[in-house]
Formats: sequence, structure tokens, C-alpha cells
Amino acid sequence: MESNTFSSKRLEAAISQFAKLPGIGKKTALRLVLHLLKQEKEKVLQFTEALQMLREEVKYCKECNNISDDVLCQMCSNPMRNAAVLCVVEDIKDVISIEATGQFHGLYHVLGGLIAPLDGVGPEQLSLDLLLQRCENGEVQEIIMAISPTIEGDTTVFYIAKMLRQFPQIKITSIARGVAFGGELEYTDELTLGKSIHKRLPIDNYINTQ
Amino acid sequence: MESNTFSSKRLEAAISQFAKLPGIGKKTALRLVLHLLKQEKEKVLQFTEALQMLREEVKYCKECNNISDDVLCQMCSNPMRNAAVLCVVEDIKDVISIEATGQFHGLYHVLGGLIAPLDGVGPEQLSLDLLLQRCENGEVQEIIMAISPTIEGDTTVFYIAKMLRQFPQIKITSIARGVAFGGELEYTDELTLGKSIHKRLPIDNYINTQ
Repeated sequence: MESNTFSSKRLEAAISQFAKLPGIGKKTALRLVLHLLKQEKEKVLQFTEALQMLREEVKYCKECNNISDDVLCQMCSNPMRNAAVLCVVEDIKDVISIEATGQFHGLYHVLGGLIAPLDGVGPEQLSLDLLLQRCENGEVQEIIMAISPTIEGDTTVFYIAKMLRQFPQIKITSIARGVAFGGELEYTDELTLGKSIHKRLPIDNYINTQ
Repeated sequence: MESNTFSSKRLEAAISQFAKLPGIGKKTALRLVLHLLKQEKEKVLQFTEALQMLREEVKYCKECNNISDDVLCQMCSNPMRNAAVLCVVEDIKDVISIEATGQFHGLYHVLGGLIAPLDGVGPEQLSLDLLLQRCENGEVQEIIMAISPTIEGDTTVFYIAKMLRQFPQIKITSIARGVAFGGELEYTDELTLGKSIHKRLPIDNYINTQ
């Protein structure tokens, strides 16, 4: 689709903006834009304002490093959740996947990535200082590692397990095998993911089964 | 994904807005929102402004009924295009498909739908008055019907052809039907194959159109 194939520059601009999103091609972009054109103006305003607001006001929770509206995220500020159990995950997509299972009622810790020396990501780029602070705090009794079983994931798990040896009172576990090797947490079905939280194993066990 | 699975209400709002778009599920919506979150603020602003601007300012060309920035669309106001040939199409997606071929240099007429009595769409809901006006104008010499060969499409073509009988000087044609280039005879449906035998062309014609 060349530039002169459009009857309207504004239409073209909207389509090319949509087509910049990952996985959205020109044809899908056109379909989405034509859909928005058919909506009432307020609906489109709601859509653009929701995105704008999120981007402008985005904060990260000072406890768990998750995306947040405030200093503390909705989860960390929820007194119904068990602050003695932390679930360490790579990113927010994993939090949403685990929440969808309804099997976990503790708090999360979002690393913001995995240790990947080949991609230039070292431990200092993850939210590990924050995790140490939370452990020093004394409230944490168990840390569940819910990390995808890839090379980077395993490296990260080992690193964190070693780092947390200074807190012998904290039990470190890993979600049970059941998550397929090479599989991404994000795409694991809810039953498997839920069971793998129930059947979590002490971290020694995790290391021995490698 | 329930309401309590999100750490941020703003994140949740943005995801649910994206998930309202056709063909976008919750997981894709999450992926798109996280992508936008990683972009710079100005990029997100460009995205939302392009959509907002399009929706707020949308006009329809007073000649061809296509989406336009002004009274006349970019095509109708382009003096390089041949105003003697009109291509009648169902909607703007067809305009973009035909433009992508680079084979048509006339103007378009966007009906905005097809006659479909079962769906309650009658001729009065299409831009037929506008088409009549353009024909009365005297400049038009040929009208090409580029309408999908469905029941609604054929009904619409017959209706328009009948309506335009009052302009005997205007030649009315339809895009050729036949076996697609690169298509296997074996997999072509019987109706298409049968019609393409009936409407066979002299071989010179065939060679010239390659």
C-alpha cells in the first residue's frame, strides 16, 4: 500500500500508527481504524485517553516493581494478601498468568527481565536490591521462583538462590515441573500453571532435577 | 482475567480498551499495551493523536463518499486522475486493494454497503443519489462495477445497472471473473471455472494481458 492509495492523509496516519504495533500489519491496521471510525467519538476518546493516561502516569511499585497507579501497587497494598510468601517472576505478563489460576494469594516480585549475559543483561539490571530489602525486612517466610525454564531463567534462579543463602529462615521453592521445557509461562494453560504452584519444590530439588 | 489480577487500574483500563477492538483478545491487548508502555511518551502521544484526529475530523468526500480530510478527497481533487472512468466499490477497503494493483487511474465511488434486504439495507442507504449526480454531470464515460460476486453484490450490481439505463452514453462494465492468476484449475470452484469457459478470450488477448 503506497502513500497515494489513500483518500485521506489522516486515515493514512492512523493506519501507519497502528501498523507500528507488534503483530499488526497494514491490513489489520486498516480494519482496526475503520472499526474505530464507526464508533462514537466518546468511545474513541475513552480508548485514546486510557492509553495516554497509562503512559503518562506509569509508576512502578516501590515494593514489587510491578506497574502501579501509586507508590504501592494494588496487590502490595491489599491487606488480604499473604505478605509472607513472595512469588518471583520475570515480568508483569507472568503475574497476570499466575493470578488467572486463582491459586496464589501471596505477593509478587517482578524482576523486570532475566540474567542474559549474551544480551548484556546483568543481575544489576534486575530489581534484586529491592528483593534483598524485602527479605531483610523479616516478614518473608517463603520465596517461590516462578521463572520460565530456559537457560536465562535457570541462570537467574541459581543467582537468586545463591544471593538469598544469607537468609536461612526463608524457604526458597520453585514452581513444579509441569511447565514444559522451553515453554513460556505466559502461554501455559491455567490448570498446569496452577498445579505447578501447588506442587512447588524446595530449591535443592529444583537444582537436582536439572 | 478478572479485575483483581491487575496491579494497576490504569493498566487494566488500557488493556480492556484494546480488547474491545475486533480480533484482539485479552492476551494480545496486554502485549500491545506493554509495548506502548516501553515506548517514549511522545510516540504514544503520536499514536493516540492520530486516532483522535481521524475520528474527530472525519469527513466523507462529497463526490465519491470516501473518507476524506476535506470537502473533496485526495483522489477526487487529483487532476492526474481520469474523471471519465468511475469504479464503483462496496467500501474503502476495496479502494485500497484496487489502488495496490496500480492498474486503475480513474476515480472511485464508495457505496458504503451492498443492498441486503435480509439485513435491512435498502438502496436508499447507499450513496446512489451521489452516483446519479455524478452521472448527470456529463463527464463520466464509463462505470466499472468492482463488487464481490455474492448474492448481495449481484443484487446491487443489477440495481445500479438498471438505475443507470437513463444514461445510454455511459458504458457500464464489470471486473472480469475467472480463474485467479497462480490458481490451480483443480481447486477452482465449479461456478467460476464454468463461467471462465463461457467468457473465454481470444488467445492474443490472453497473451497481451500477461
